[in-house]
Amino acid sequence: MTAILVLNGPNLNLLGTRQPEIYGTTTLADIRAMVEAHGSRLGFTIEFEQSNHEGVMVDLLHAARGRVAGVVLNAGAYTHSSVALRDAISSTELPVVEVHLSNIHAREAFRHVSHIAPVALGQIAGFGPTSYTLALDALAAHLGRERG
Amino acid sequence: MTAILVLNGPNLNLLGTRQPEIYGTTTLADIRAMVEAHGSRLGFTIEFEQSNHEGVMVDLLHAARGRVAGVVLNAGAYTHSSVALRDAISSTELPVVEVHLSNIHAREAFRHVSHIAPVALGQIAGFGPTSYTLALDALAAHLGRERG
Amino acid sequence: MTAILVLNGPNLNLLGTRQPEIYGTTTLADIRAMVEAHGSRLGFTIEFEQSNHEGVMVDLLHAARGRVAGVVLNAGAYTHSSVALRDAISSTELPVVEVHLSNIHAREAFRHVSHIAPVALGQIAGFGPTSYTLALDALAAHLGRERG
Amino acid sequence: MTAILVLNGPNLNLLGTRQPEIYGTTTLADIRAMVEAHGSRLGFTIEFEQSNHEGVMVDLLHAARGRVAGVVLNAGAYTHSSVALRDAISSTELPVVEVHLSNIHAREAFRHVSHIAPVALGQIAGFGPTSYTLALDALAAHLGRERG
Amino acid sequence: MTAILVLNGPNLNLLGTRQPEIYGTTTLADIRAMVEAHGSRLGFTIEFEQSNHEGVMVDLLHAARGRVAGVVLNAGAYTHSSVALRDAISSTELPVVEVHLSNIHAREAFRHVSHIAPVALGQIAGFGPTSYTLALDALAAHLGRERG
Amino acid sequence: MTAILVLNGPNLNLLGTRQPEIYGTTTLADIRAMVEAHGSRLGFTIEFEQSNHEGVMVDLLHAARGRVAGVVLNAGAYTHSSVALRDAISSTELPVVEVHLSNIHAREAFRHVSHIAPVALGQIAGFGPTSYTLALDALAAHLGRERG
Amino acid sequence: MTAILVLNGPNLNLLGTRQPEIYGTTTLADIRAMVEAHGSRLGFTIEFEQSNHEGVMVDLLHAARGRVAGVVLNAGAYTHSSVALRDAISSTELPVVEVHLSNIHAREAFRHVSHIAPVALGQIAGFGPTSYTLALDALAAHLGRERG
Amino acid sequence: MTAILVLNGPNLNLLGTRQPEIYGTTTLADIRAMVEAHGSRLGFTIEFEQSNHEGVMVDLLHAARGRVAGVVLNAGAYTHSSVALRDAISSTELPVVEVHLSNIHAREAFRHVSHIAPVALGQIAGFGPTSYTLALDALAAHLGRERG
Amino acid sequence: MTAILVLNGPNLNLLGTRQPEIYGTTTLADIRAMVEAHGSRLGFTIEFEQSNHEGVMVDLLHAARGRVAGVVLNAGAYTHSSVALRDAISSTELPVVEVHLSNIHAREAFRHVSHIAPVALGQIAGFGPTSYTLALDALAAHLGRERG
Amino acid sequence: MTAILVLNGPNLNLLGTRQPEIYGTTTLADIRAMVEAHGSRLGFTIEFEQSNHEGVMVDLLHAARGRVAGVVLNAGAYTHSSVALRDAISSTELPVVEVHLSNIHAREAFRHVSHIAPVALGQIAGFGPTSYTLALDALAAHLGRERG
Amino acid sequence: MTAILVLNGPNLNLLGTRQPEIYGTTTLADIRAMVEAHGSRLGFTIEFEQSNHEGVMVDLLHAARGRVAGVVLNAGAYTHSSVALRDAISSTELPVVEVHLSNIHAREAFRHVSHIAPVALGQIAGFGPTSYTLALDALAAHLGRERG
Amino acid sequence: MTAILVLNGPNLNLLGTRQPEIYGTTTLADIRAMVEAHGSRLGFTIEFEQSNHEGVMVDLLHAARGRVAGVVLNAGAYTHSSVALRDAISSTELPVVEVHLSNIHAREAFRHVSHIAPVALGQIAGFGPTSYTLALDALAAHLGRERG
Repeated sequence: MTAILVLNGPNLNLLGTRQPEIYGTTTLADIRAMVEAHGSRLGFTIEFEQSNHEGVMVDLLHAARGRVAGVVLNAGAYTHSSVALRDAISSTELPVVEVHLSNIHAREAFRHVSHIAPVALGQIAGFGPTSYTLALDALAAHLGRERG
Repeated sequence: MTAILVLNGPNLNLLGTRQPEIYGTTTLADIRAMVEAHGSRLGFTIEFEQSNHEGVMVDLLHAARGRVAGVVLNAGAYTHSSVALRDAISSTELPVVEVHLSNIHAREAFRHVSHIAPVALGQIAGFGPTSYTLALDALAAHLGRERG
Repeated sequence: MTAILVLNGPNLNLLGTRQPEIYGTTTLADIRAMVEAHGSRLGFTIEFEQSNHEGVMVDLLHAARGRVAGVVLNAGAYTHSSVALRDAISSTELPVVEVHLSNIHAREAFRHVSHIAPVALGQIAGFGPTSYTLALDALAAHLGRERG
Repeated sequence: MTAILVLNGPNLNLLGTRQPEIYGTTTLADIRAMVEAHGSRLGFTIEFEQSNHEGVMVDLLHAARGRVAGVVLNAGAYTHSSVALRDAISSTELPVVEVHLSNIHAREAFRHVSHIAPVALGQIAGFGPTSYTLALDALAAHLGRERG
Repeated sequence: MTAILVLNGPNLNLLGTRQPEIYGTTTLADIRAMVEAHGSRLGFTIEFEQSNHEGVMVDLLHAARGRVAGVVLNAGAYTHSSVALRDAISSTELPVVEVHLSNIHAREAFRHVSHIAPVALGQIAGFGPTSYTLALDALAAHLGRERG
Repeated sequence: MTAILVLNGPNLNLLGTRQPEIYGTTTLADIRAMVEAHGSRLGFTIEFEQSNHEGVMVDLLHAARGRVAGVVLNAGAYTHSSVALRDAISSTELPVVEVHLSNIHAREAFRHVSHIAPVALGQIAGFGPTSYTLALDALAAHLGRERG
Repeated sequence: MTAILVLNGPNLNLLGTRQPEIYGTTTLADIRAMVEAHGSRLGFTIEFEQSNHEGVMVDLLHAARGRVAGVVLNAGAYTHSSVALRDAISSTELPVVEVHLSNIHAREAFRHVSHIAPVALGQIAGFGPTSYTLALDALAAHLGRERG
Repeated sequence: MTAILVLNGPNLNLLGTRQPEIYGTTTLADIRAMVEAHGSRLGFTIEFEQSNHEGVMVDLLHAARGRVAGVVLNAGAYTHSSVALRDAISSTELPVVEVHLSNIHAREAFRHVSHIAPVALGQIAGFGPTSYTLALDALAAHLGRERG
Repeated sequence: MTAILVLNGPNLNLLGTRQPEIYGTTTLADIRAMVEAHGSRLGFTIEFEQSNHEGVMVDLLHAARGRVAGVVLNAGAYTHSSVALRDAISSTELPVVEVHLSNIHAREAFRHVSHIAPVALGQIAGFGPTSYTLALDALAAHLGRERG
Repeated sequence: MTAILVLNGPNLNLLGTRQPEIYGTTTLADIRAMVEAHGSRLGFTIEFEQSNHEGVMVDLLHAARGRVAGVVLNAGAYTHSSVALRDAISSTELPVVEVHLSNIHAREAFRHVSHIAPVALGQIAGFGPTSYTLALDALAAHLGRERG
Repeated sequence: MTAILVLNGPNLNLLGTRQPEIYGTTTLADIRAMVEAHGSRLGFTIEFEQSNHEGVMVDLLHAARGRVAGVVLNAGAYTHSSVALRDAISSTELPVVEVHLSNIHAREAFRHVSHIAPVALGQIAGFGPTSYTLALDALAAHLGRERG
Repeated sequence: MTAILVLNGPNLNLLGTRQPEIYGTTTLADIRAMVEAHGSRLGFTIEFEQSNHEGVMVDLLHAARGRVAGVVLNAGAYTHSSVALRDAISSTELPVVEVHLSNIHAREAFRHVSHIAPVALGQIAGFGPTSYTLALDALAAHLGRERG
């Protein structure tokens, strides 16, 4: 079994707990369940984390080094403001797939810029919770290619 | 069976035909085969097209209206220069998943801007040919949600 | 009788064929009929063209040289991206009235910039199909002044 | 009979009084006559005003509320500097057609930006005095559609 | 004999056919003759093409791959708007000399930016038809160095 | 015989004296020899100068006025920072061909801007020492046209 | 009793007179009554003015010098365009509290810039008519501190 | 009684402890006392918090959801750098009044931009500790209007 | 005798009436006296005006046409915001010398931009009241050259 | 003995633990040893800290106030994103020497901007671990001057 | 007698020696004569210098320190590119009047920026050789005020 | 013994000769003495140069090639304007430590940009004359590492 860190940034803990008629009723726990189920089909064990703290997210990436084969990262708002996360990815050399629930390129201009993207394998944005399972598939393909 | 248009833009016809030690040997024909195989698993018939002509790509999107359920679009260089493609997507109201073989956010600054993204469902970039099969999965999930 | 080229750019062929409750039901064929009727009142024969291809639009402007007295140009998305159309107008020295159905100055910022305007006689934007008949009137006045 | 306010901004009072070999000899009085004649053909009574004062122009728009059916506005230099006129249009909710004698998009870069355009029905620029009569036609069409 | 593609972009077909007192009377056919004569002195056979279509120009570059030793490219207006041509040059790995009849650096600011230049061998601009024969000489020297 | 000033700017004196495996072994003396040989074929006597001083370069252009028929100018770093050289060219009204050994448009962004280009006949960049001989040919053609 | 000038800029006279279902029915007269009532509780006599004229607003600030203890200024659209009002505040050295009914920082980008703010005591924006009574309280505290 | 969170950002804990001749001697404890006194007059119980940690501030906003009726937020330096706080406000849908002790619009340019303002009810800046009590009044009025 | 209009813009009426220890005690009346004395030495009669109203300043320039030989214009804050004054100068074709008491180029960045300068004869800034008498001398020289 | 805080920001804990052939094998522990040794020669006791948390770094600076004589700060990625650290330095009035292992001015453009530098004594960048000992020397000189 | 340095920058030595029908026939020697004559009326001895070398101009300013009472500086092209001249003025603390023959604010945008102006007493631009004599008058007034 | 060039740019010759109460009384001769003393402790012989001429500074760098082991460069104002110095450093491949007496990052924005930094080993700014001795230490460490 291969370990994958699925790391969620600020405010994602509130997902699905308000205005279900607008944002849907999928909670982060629901996403976790989906991700764990999909992961297990791919032979992945999932470490699923969420933090509102930039520093904690950096710590979690550091702690994952040498222990997980890849990272699915939804950095939330820190996508657009955190150079520290960018450098954590470079420093740990972990393969990271950047995900977003919404299509950040269709929102406010400041959300079009990602500090994560230039050091990630790639970006998947706009598909809701499906973004996460696609990211697992992308990691599986990437790790397969590396091994293959 | 549901029809999906997979539309490829300029220069993608040359894929895999030069410097295999650098860019790999996957050709567009190989991607087509992968896409058709993956599509058939999802119940999709694939219309696979490539053109170096912005106008032809607009025409193909128009022609797809009412006939396909979704589009996987790798607009290549037109991603960054074509307002016409953007408006074709808006006008046809087709659900479009934007894909890129490379991580455009890790390349030259002018490739960070996509005219397609604001009118697409979402964007998948950086996973090589796998970007296409992820896009099919994303479309499948999207169409399922619409029907669901 | 004086010939006038009325040249329409990308996606305008789809006009009126979808979401009539939002965009109205006026099609490009309806506009053509309005333009031909109004033109005949002004002593104009109308050559009415539409293309999704930038290059075809350039070709049509070239072909019009020496044969038409003026051009009504709705370049659609190419308004904002095509230097080639701008240079085609300069090169053919045809008097061109730029038209837009919508008020481009009230839309996204990238639609405020027109490559056509600096080489056109003037711009008429925001009056729906009426923009076209106003443009014919503007051409009639311009040609009258030239002759007068 | 429907009343229309034709409001002219700074320096337009000097029109036609100097360098006739360059700018022509059409004065603002001539334009008034043209506009009144064309207006009467359309069933419009014309209130023709000119002021060099931004505040007076705002006052005139306020005073027009509820009394005129539409406005033809050549805001002259205030086009490019007056947020107050923009807000006056929004506040009075009068349908406004923005006109310019010259093609402002072919002049200095600071004249390409209009504070008026985003709150106007549309813009007509570059046709000399004809811009005004075209604007009356545009208003007639607009008012007809509203009633129609 | 070595084949060279001389590829001309939009509006260059109109060269010399209007206002000879201003732009001179040299037509594109004249340039072709000059280029063929100069080419034959250098041992080059010349494939001389012109198109107003960005896509056709991309196609012509693709078709030249493996058949010509170098390209003289006057991309005209597409110099400033076409990422597709840039990528076609990168993709085909053809040595390209960018030429311009006029000194683009002395014209409007938007003509100072070339999408072609960063992937070309070099740029020759401002010498009228002589730009083309200089480009042939530059290619000859480049090809000589490669062989030498 | 016609005199031509070939003026070289800062740091060009070091050419070819270091890292021959990277930059080649062509020295400025070698370029001088090439230029003099090519010049004599064209009927040009060459005044070949190099200075690291902006002021000396301005002085040399002034001194050339009335004595040389044209200038080949490789202003090196001053290309990007010197308004004084630009004004010296305007003031002396000498026909100047701007040359660069490297393709400045493919290097750092600050090297894309040339203060020289807007007042030069044209620019030749990217062909190594060949840039100089092409520049002589361009001057010969220009002077021939002037006389012709 | 201490006199306070409450100065209102362009278009604020129209407040509450249209679309009550959207903007509410509070008129400027209502605000005046609220302000006078609140002022009298604080020991302030209120001079309540409105003008659509930038120059009149400057005149009113000049006239207030030496006669009022402070100013509540809702400069409306002139907030974003008037350097003259800024300089009038600096020149008169009156303590000014800038107020806005709406949250200007949540509206169009051009409304985020205030020429008034850098020379005001502070800014209160977004609380509807309450912004005015808060401003009186802020002035009372400021004047108290000055005296205290 | 209605609970209000008064949340203070980085470095505000140091208030009043240095250079009293410049910054005054008001400490954050003094502000707390003022706020609690003023709050109790308005029927508010105050939860007064300070943190130098962006993540803790996000946590505190989350924890306040459903428990407080409104928030007074002095985000200090995070005003200008934190997208996470912005999103926390949007996500919790808490009514937030942004306050600043100093007039941020009269300081360095980077302090003119607030990530908080676009999602806050409004902004009060420049009145020292009084900014806080004004914010409580603003919240009281807002909550009254909501209930009213 | 030759008439000269000396036109002063907003807030200049307050000159010298406050903080004499900082700004000096020279009032606008003092400047008027200096200007009249200096003017009479040059054979100029002076029309000395001041207004806080942009529109009045435009009116005064219009009224001066044909009656004065030149204008000394200290547009104050309108220097940086008024396109209307710029166009009034162009429209009246009056020779205008722009003056400023302070060195506007050493103040805030927004004061470095003058809408007046591009249409004025020249600019004199930074010499206090002496700027005015220098401007009269400049006009005298200009008018002498014109006559000479 | 004088206490000095040496504060290290995010990701610096990973130093030297990967790719020794590229980044060398110096760890943060090695730097600590160097700094302590060098500090003891200067009569400094060293408090050596590292944190990935912006808030913790602010807390550490606060806690150092009154206890240390100066700070050596390598803020890592927070150099470029943290206004909070900047304000912590201003608020504590500690003399801070900014250090960087790499030459940040030779890296990506976003690393050229330091929020720390404007409130630091000075900056030392580019000398690897030596940057730290140079910073101690700089602090020693600064403290000597203060005492001297 | 008071000494004044009149320092002229690059290319001004060529003044009046070409195209007299356009630029006039006034040479720098003529300006020197005018300046010396006007200076002697004011009690000034004139040191009149010209150099095309930035470094020489810095040297001349240094050498003037303590020997001249003021400087009239026409820095020519170095106005727009030389920080060294700016710092030389700051370092020598000489009162400098910046002059320009032409109205630099009506020319190319890069000529609107002066590195000299922020450290000069003021700027006089646009009056041809008269700019110099006005500058002497400005210096006389400035020196008189200093003494007065 | 190892030779080191310490090269000082424009205006540094004036150091310490004016306003000692502000800038201190340290002259460039004092710095030279400090540098020579510190250098001799490190086994360095110092070549200490100053010039106000950009070209002379380039010449001195060229002349140092092959003769000195490193350079301490305080380019003064040329730091911000000279591409020639940048290229001289690249061309000579000398290890250069950039120094500044003041903290350039805390001064005007145009002083934040250094043309030298991207090609230097590193930058030391803000420590007065101590910057120079720190630079020698940095060079010693660098040269030791190279040898070590």
